[in-house]
Amino acid sequence: MAQEEVQNGEPEKVAEVSFTALKPQLMVEAPKAADAVQFYKTAFGAVEAGRTVYPKRKAEQEQPHVLSAELELAGSTILVSDIADNSTPVKTEGTGCVLCLETEDVEAAIAKAVSAGGVAEGEVTEGDGACCGGRVGKVKDPYGYVWLICSPAKKCGDAEA
Amino acid sequence: MAQEEVQNGEPEKVAEVSFTALKPQLMVEAPKAADAVQFYKTAFGAVEAGRTVYPKRKAEQEQPHVLSAELELAGSTILVSDIADNSTPVKTEGTGCVLCLETEDVEAAIAKAVSAGGVAEGEVTEGDGACCGGRVGKVKDPYGYVWLICSPAKKCGDAEA
Repeated sequence: MAQEEVQNGEPEKVAEVSFTALKPQLMVEAPKAADAVQFYKTAFGAVEAGRTVYPKRKAEQEQPHVLSAELELAGSTILVSDIADNSTPVKTEGTGCVLCLETEDVEAAIAKAVSAGGVAEGEVTEGDGACCGGRVGKVKDPYGYVWLICSPAKKCGDAEA
Repeated sequence: MAQEEVQNGEPEKVAEVSFTALKPQLMVEAPKAADAVQFYKTAFGAVEAGRTVYPKRKAEQEQPHVLSAELELAGSTILVSDIADNSTPVKTEGTGCVLCLETEDVEAAIAKAVSAGGVAEGEVTEGDGACCGGRVGKVKDPYGYVWLICSPAKKCGDAEA
């Protein structure tokens, strides 16, 4: 693999690059992005920082197509976007991205998300996996995304050491 | 939907919940998580903050199973985890989560990611969609995840206004 060739240093011909922000973008089947934004506000207390929509719809009664809604959540920013059936999907082929939310009160957070329309999956467990230790529960939101609700991460250590 | 019933206020019986961190967790087909971590370091300059692995492998020559590797990237934290074929997948059914990385130099960032083994998809475009304006390119990493490489977001506005 290419990265093997450069793992001991920067590739020589490639410029130094810095990144100013990382924002997970959740694609939602159109026109449900507006509903998803409302869910993330109610379930997790996300705060909407802005929204860009297509100005015109084919019919008056249609929901506007959300190009991107920006939500502040737990010190991070997430984007929520409608993706139309006929658009080229920006579809990941990865095994799956989940979103890990850390909180002091895992049970209360799950209860709140469930009361907003999420579905708790499995029991809250004590694990040392996903989030480097502590309590972990799982909620699937109405738009198909899985959220791990975790107690704050302990510093990851190498269990081999 | 349940959230309709509570959108004008907190549900009465549910505790106030606050979240301290949001960490996207990328599930990678085992045992490729270690390779993925190396790729994110080389391609994006991610810095590994810790790694938790299963202490024992079935065979000496096997790669350790990465429960969770924690990477600092663009002021955020991402987790990378091996997911075994026979485990219950924490699989999202969402239309797909992509990761939007903001940088001043979209072309250089894409070139660097490609030199590390990523695949550029399509051209860099000027859009007002995904990241609220500016230049956007797309790179698929060797583990199936799509990264949008975007110029820093302008403030999202409502295009209807």
